[in-house]
Amino acid sequence: MIQKHVLLITCKDAQGLIAAISDVIFKMKLNIEIMREFVEEETNRFFMRCELSGDVDTDILLANLKAKLSDDCQIVINPKSKKDIVILATKEYHCLSDLLTRFFFEELGANVKAVICNHPNLGEFVGNFKVPFHYVSHENKTKHEFEVEILDILTGYKPDYVVLAKFMRILSPEFVSRYENKIINIHHSFLPAFIGANPYMQAFHRGVKLIGATAHIVNNQLDEGPILTQKVIEVDHNFNAKKLVETGHEVEKQVLAEACKLVFEDKVFVSGNKTIILK
Amino acid sequence: MIQKHVLLITCKDAQGLIAAISDVIFKMKLNIEIMREFVEEETNRFFMRCELSGDVDTDILLANLKAKLSDDCQIVINPKSKKDIVILATKEYHCLSDLLTRFFFEELGANVKAVICNHPNLGEFVGNFKVPFHYVSHENKTKHEFEVEILDILTGYKPDYVVLAKFMRILSPEFVSRYENKIINIHHSFLPAFIGANPYMQAFHRGVKLIGATAHIVNNQLDEGPILTQKVIEVDHNFNAKKLVETGHEVEKQVLAEACKLVFEDKVFVSGNKTIILK
Amino acid sequence: MIQKHVLLITCKDAQGLIAAISDVIFKMKLNIEIMREFVEEETNRFFMRCELSGDVDTDILLANLKAKLSDDCQIVINPKSKKDIVILATKEYHCLSDLLTRFFFEELGANVKAVICNHPNLGEFVGNFKVPFHYVSHENKTKHEFEVEILDILTGYKPDYVVLAKFMRILSPEFVSRYENKIINIHHSFLPAFIGANPYMQAFHRGVKLIGATAHIVNNQLDEGPILTQKVIEVDHNFNAKKLVETGHEVEKQVLAEACKLVFEDKVFVSGNKTIILK
Amino acid sequence: MIQKHVLLITCKDAQGLIAAISDVIFKMKLNIEIMREFVEEETNRFFMRCELSGDVDTDILLANLKAKLSDDCQIVINPKSKKDIVILATKEYHCLSDLLTRFFFEELGANVKAVICNHPNLGEFVGNFKVPFHYVSHENKTKHEFEVEILDILTGYKPDYVVLAKFMRILSPEFVSRYENKIINIHHSFLPAFIGANPYMQAFHRGVKLIGATAHIVNNQLDEGPILTQKVIEVDHNFNAKKLVETGHEVEKQVLAEACKLVFEDKVFVSGNKTIILK
Repeated sequence: MIQKHVLLITCKDAQGLIAAISDVIFKMKLNIEIMREFVEEETNRFFMRCELSGDVDTDILLANLKAKLSDDCQIVINPKSKKDIVILATKEYHCLSDLLTRFFFEELGANVKAVICNHPNLGEFVGNFKVPFHYVSHENKTKHEFEVEILDILTGYKPDYVVLAKFMRILSPEFVSRYENKIINIHHSFLPAFIGANPYMQAFHRGVKLIGATAHIVNNQLDEGPILTQKVIEVDHNFNAKKLVETGHEVEKQVLAEACKLVFEDKVFVSGNKTIILK
Repeated sequence: MIQKHVLLITCKDAQGLIAAISDVIFKMKLNIEIMREFVEEETNRFFMRCELSGDVDTDILLANLKAKLSDDCQIVINPKSKKDIVILATKEYHCLSDLLTRFFFEELGANVKAVICNHPNLGEFVGNFKVPFHYVSHENKTKHEFEVEILDILTGYKPDYVVLAKFMRILSPEFVSRYENKIINIHHSFLPAFIGANPYMQAFHRGVKLIGATAHIVNNQLDEGPILTQKVIEVDHNFNAKKLVETGHEVEKQVLAEACKLVFEDKVFVSGNKTIILK
Repeated sequence: MIQKHVLLITCKDAQGLIAAISDVIFKMKLNIEIMREFVEEETNRFFMRCELSGDVDTDILLANLKAKLSDDCQIVINPKSKKDIVILATKEYHCLSDLLTRFFFEELGANVKAVICNHPNLGEFVGNFKVPFHYVSHENKTKHEFEVEILDILTGYKPDYVVLAKFMRILSPEFVSRYENKIINIHHSFLPAFIGANPYMQAFHRGVKLIGATAHIVNNQLDEGPILTQKVIEVDHNFNAKKLVETGHEVEKQVLAEACKLVFEDKVFVSGNKTIILK
Repeated sequence: MIQKHVLLITCKDAQGLIAAISDVIFKMKLNIEIMREFVEEETNRFFMRCELSGDVDTDILLANLKAKLSDDCQIVINPKSKKDIVILATKEYHCLSDLLTRFFFEELGANVKAVICNHPNLGEFVGNFKVPFHYVSHENKTKHEFEVEILDILTGYKPDYVVLAKFMRILSPEFVSRYENKIINIHHSFLPAFIGANPYMQAFHRGVKLIGATAHIVNNQLDEGPILTQKVIEVDHNFNAKKLVETGHEVEKQVLAEACKLVFEDKVFVSGNKTIILK
């Protein structure tokens, strides 16, 4: 069977980059199945994702690419194809169950190493999937103590990504910095509308005709991290706050699942507070 | 041919309202084609829109309904079926041309009595539709002077509604109060995201994956009036601010046209800063 | 706590129906929370769904309604609030798991009494939800024998509805007639496009730019039953047949879940090969 | 100002194509702004669209590319940036007016040389846009005679594309062959559902919950040509056939405008009965 390879390159933009890269690929007798590139004007940076086929020593491929490209280039060949992840949740099941089910049937592109919740109610459900469940209450603890407990558990699993599947606590900058650009969150509004708490109640009071959800990479500004995916759904005056919440759940889980898929397939590049998604 | 009637009722909610109303309708030998109602919990108000068929003296129908309903009831029978409107615009053609074309082919549900712009560039186009065009520059005038000039023109046309088809000046409370709940605006963002100026540039810098547009009734809070319709469209990192604007135009004109249709067909009730749309 | 009631009425259209019904409701001191009605022109039939609140003897309510309405009227008061269902599937997990998870967290509006599959692979997963799993192979059996086996199992559970969650065998008219208008199917295309087998392969060869899914009530014409819900998702030339299938799965489960919700909440009326959905 | 160039390449797939092409581009000191490529598995063909910047003699660029690529390669550099088009319509204004308005404000990417209709009613409207209007009745003529008349007019305008903006006559293979892959049609259904006449009436009788529109390149199989764009809109049992038509118009004009934009910007490659759209 022919080998498949994923090649990710980020560097300062320059003339001849595609020529140089594709020449290396050609000389190593690889086939380009898909090549996607983007130059971000504001930062003058070049982003590329290729899918290649053909037998090759990837160390030599890397060396050859490095020889042709400038030193600031970040080159990744064949990133880990199945990411290890830990999911954090609170009490709501809809996003968590969606991810666990995809994992169970091996369509998530990731191994769910564990689930950590600050409420115990989802434990039985998680157990059915043979995934370790950790209940870490936030009660009677400082935020720091609570986070240290979670970090300790996380450290044991060495996750590539942490997915916040409706984890309703705001993480401290210290926590976030431990997993820089590695935490995926689902926010239950169409950001930047309704930042902060109770977005559905905010939406109800504003009388919007669409509600939405946003999956994003977490950084230190609340709800300001790079956006991965967004979706909306139509509502009207018949929707009270409770029905807005229920309806929103449908969109939230879709948006989070799509975002995870893109990240786990190495299609997402982060540039400042934006994402570049090469698919 | 059988007469058709539209009946609009707003009042404090009470038991037996539908029974009382439908009894009057039945006794006058009218047929209920469509009955839509809504009770708003927060305000405890009842809203109803009916389409009736049958020959009737509408004065007697009104009297009979009043006799059965409490004094606070607002009852409208057969509101003007074609509204007179004046459109205000600035330089962009896309919303204006959409409304004018529907008017020309008699599918707008309104008569466009005039177009007023604070730039002259759309004059020739408007002229093709045999609609009076008024160019009122805002330059070298106070806001008050500018608005007085527009109000003077408006007064001459006695419009039922004023449609802001990308009119890029903020109207004063005095202006708005002259046409309370009678001014329809299109805002080029998915409100409440990106309130204020340059929403597409804001969207670009935020890196959103959807952009939107919102048609709303104008009140005295900037971009805070009751929302009529909203729509979004997918974008990605390839969209620079210029392309976001172009793409947004497609949604803006759809959203405004839909909103106008709903208002002109008397399907919209305003309650505080929300709309109840019975369709 | 105030009692809530659901009232469903279907009958020949006539003047005064709403007056008669709402009068009975008013005289029994019930409050109309929501009233939705529709008159189907082609059949001249009237459909109504009301949500009422207030304490009442529903037998008397029924008697009073019957006394005022013609004999052909079908009146249902407070249909069973949680339906008993059996799910049939083949090998694919996505629709089945979605329904089971909602059931597990008590948001399906139905009790899943059992799952029957003609392949064994989903057994372990179903077992996690404490739902009986029946494996009924279709191999080395006539269609009749196969269906008799399933019917025998079904009979034991007395389901209100049978949900085909990607059950890939065509049911005989005899089978369907046993559960008339009680079988909900998900078809993996935007019907009536791509009727029959392998719709995604058909879609691939046709080069469509949208793919879809359709949930419908099953009748004896293949893929011709009354449509409940439909959704589409954008695709392009990059989607091969495998990727179309994966992408379609996302829509299929949403469409089926929505359809089930509407049916289980008694919002669906069937009229010939159409549905009237009062929500 | 820096020159911009569009480069379109179609050829048999082979290893090293991107390397060869990008090497020529680099050696001629051109910058690759956007490179999009696709290999179609079934046909083993390679498609590429590039946007380049930099000063260059395009004849030499072409010669250099030809020298590096196999003889079967089709290479186009800087296709005509504004296409000449003729629009054919029947009686409906919505698609035609949309295209004419974009043309008037120079956002269509094409010059509308003339409009030909088999009914006279749109003549005055077209005249407002200073576009020649030709009324060619189909009455009392054979199809052949009718088409010859149209072809004679078309020939005079030498259009790059013919756009059927709700032209309700089926064109003969002879006609189509004169403008192979150069005729864009809007069909008022979500193809391949509801092929042929009266799709909205078909949709009404089928009770669909979505209606759609499809823009496609015309070939000799009725409604079977390569699909460019498709869109749908939600409907329900309240929509009679007339309302389905009105609602469909909104989608039709959007779909046709998008399709035209893609074609006029040279983003569409036709391969058999499919399109490859590199954007």
